[in-house]
Amino acid sequence: MAVQVPGTVGEVGEFGLIDRIVSKLGTADVADVPLGPGDDAAIVSAPSGSVVVSTDMLVEGRHFRRDWSSPEDIGRKAAAQNLMDIVAMGARPTALLVAIGMPADTPTEWVMSLTEGLREEAALQGVTVVGGDVVRSERVVISVTALGDLGDDKPLTRSGVSAGQVIAVKGRIGWASAGLSILSRGFRTPRVLADAHRRPEPPYGAAAEARRGGATALIDISDGLVADLGHLAEASGVVIDIDRSLLPIADPVREAAAAFNVDPLIWVLSGGDDHAVAAAFDADTVLPEGFVVVAKALSLEDAPDVPKPMAIVNGKVPLGGGGHDHFSGV
Amino acid sequence: MAVQVPGTVGEVGEFGLIDRIVSKLGTADVADVPLGPGDDAAIVSAPSGSVVVSTDMLVEGRHFRRDWSSPEDIGRKAAAQNLMDIVAMGARPTALLVAIGMPADTPTEWVMSLTEGLREEAALQGVTVVGGDVVRSERVVISVTALGDLGDDKPLTRSGVSAGQVIAVKGRIGWASAGLSILSRGFRTPRVLADAHRRPEPPYGAAAEARRGGATALIDISDGLVADLGHLAEASGVVIDIDRSLLPIADPVREAAAAFNVDPLIWVLSGGDDHAVAAAFDADTVLPEGFVVVAKALSLEDAPDVPKPMAIVNGKVPLGGGGHDHFSGV
Repeated sequence: MAVQVPGTVGEVGEFGLIDRIVSKLGTADVADVPLGPGDDAAIVSAPSGSVVVSTDMLVEGRHFRRDWSSPEDIGRKAAAQNLMDIVAMGARPTALLVAIGMPADTPTEWVMSLTEGLREEAALQGVTVVGGDVVRSERVVISVTALGDLGDDKPLTRSGVSAGQVIAVKGRIGWASAGLSILSRGFRTPRVLADAHRRPEPPYGAAAEARRGGATALIDISDGLVADLGHLAEASGVVIDIDRSLLPIADPVREAAAAFNVDPLIWVLSGGDDHAVAAAFDADTVLPEGFVVVAKALSLEDAPDVPKPMAIVNGKVPLGGGGHDHFSGV
Repeated sequence: MAVQVPGTVGEVGEFGLIDRIVSKLGTADVADVPLGPGDDAAIVSAPSGSVVVSTDMLVEGRHFRRDWSSPEDIGRKAAAQNLMDIVAMGARPTALLVAIGMPADTPTEWVMSLTEGLREEAALQGVTVVGGDVVRSERVVISVTALGDLGDDKPLTRSGVSAGQVIAVKGRIGWASAGLSILSRGFRTPRVLADAHRRPEPPYGAAAEARRGGATALIDISDGLVADLGHLAEASGVVIDIDRSLLPIADPVREAAAAFNVDPLIWVLSGGDDHAVAAAFDADTVLPEGFVVVAKALSLEDAPDVPKPMAIVNGKVPLGGGGHDHFSGV
């Protein structure tokens, strides 16, 4: 039977909720959107003649908890990680679509705040939510699709790393993972780390800076540094050797690790969700500001103990690969 | 902790599962896909300079049940309803993206069969799945995004209905709803109706036929005839008066209704998910083959008892609107 608790999405109904969401998102004309929400499909400009597109799903209890993150946080995180998938191809985001599943007793105000978070993060990249879906589900699930345009540029894929190049990163690494550890242990502070889990602050401009600086391959760190440099290595057919001594460990991460008596490199090597940018540059390149070399690319011949293209740490294959697997434990 | 039951997605892991899915989908070169799965984002051609895009989410227990539908059925249904959102704009589908949430103990074979269903239905429209995401969730949830291209055509939106026009439909109406009723009562037959719920057979060609036949507005029936003609009416600022006597009632629907002692028009008026096409034509138009007039469009002045643009039935405002609301009961 229908759940019609006052102030809930069950009370306002599917179409009432959609009306409220569309109203919250704003109906201002947007250059990239010839046709916004309200029809069978939206229409988004693709001036280059092709569209860059990616989708990610966030599930309550896996990617966020409603008691740890505000709805604005969750909206911002969902938008940010999808926008970064577009940025990580060297493209300019043009639009988001958002499908949301939620229980009928979800407060309408909660959904409006989630929508506000989506809107705010999208606005950082000059885009809007052009379409979506709302359905009933037992737990909150948010699926975002991001679109983008390359203009006259070629995509910055994962397959452009050559042996002899260096891999440099820009952006936070290990912050979100440290924040998740803190929240998991029942703490709320340091706030800066907890917030890094709640709403990432991706270095949106770093991909364009990397391109201008001569980057030949690029990825955003979402699964963890070892896992994502592994993706670069696999796609490029090289071995990427991470040098622990070069890894940037920010003060809050170092201090939290000391307080918990853990090695901060665990968070830096295997934590995802900060969405730092990692790019390949020729070894003699003057790196763009803020980029830090953390690894070098080797040919398979120059790494005879490594069985296949992958990321290694100080010459050794890391135990368990160091990555994040969504079907393993949190 | 990790769930690693043999033969499950927990055992093969996120990246192992993605590898298997991508392999199942096939890596053949597709004209519309300059860059397929495997990078931060895919690239899809948008030759007209814009992209038509829509997203829908299907939740286990709401849109399908694993004991009623095979995984192939579920994959076909998820692809079909999203492809039809593109077709209903008068566009040609170019690609799908699919995000899937599932429990760690989901059999890998189940996901492979779901993937096969997605692949098969997409192939009916000449497209492939170019990207996606797999995550862990308590129940299966599938979010599909479809992309399309209009070529040199204008979109067939919901807002092009004028007073004096007729609304004609092509495709099954009420079949999927009858099938859901049958399954809900514990029956498995008539098979043709149960299958209509499990995997719709949308009239993919009907939108192009409608356009060639002079249609000025178009929608696919996914929420129910009254609800979706209501969407046409709202977007166009007209009243759409459905004539019960004109509604096509297929033999299987009529026979099932007789067996259950219900009015078949309940299924025809309020059942969605068959994805029939409804289009507006001038009253003197010779309709394309297979289209049947079911309603006429009135100005608000010619319907003084109707408070706002909406769909009515034989001159009367239907009780409850007749539509399907995802936050109400099934």
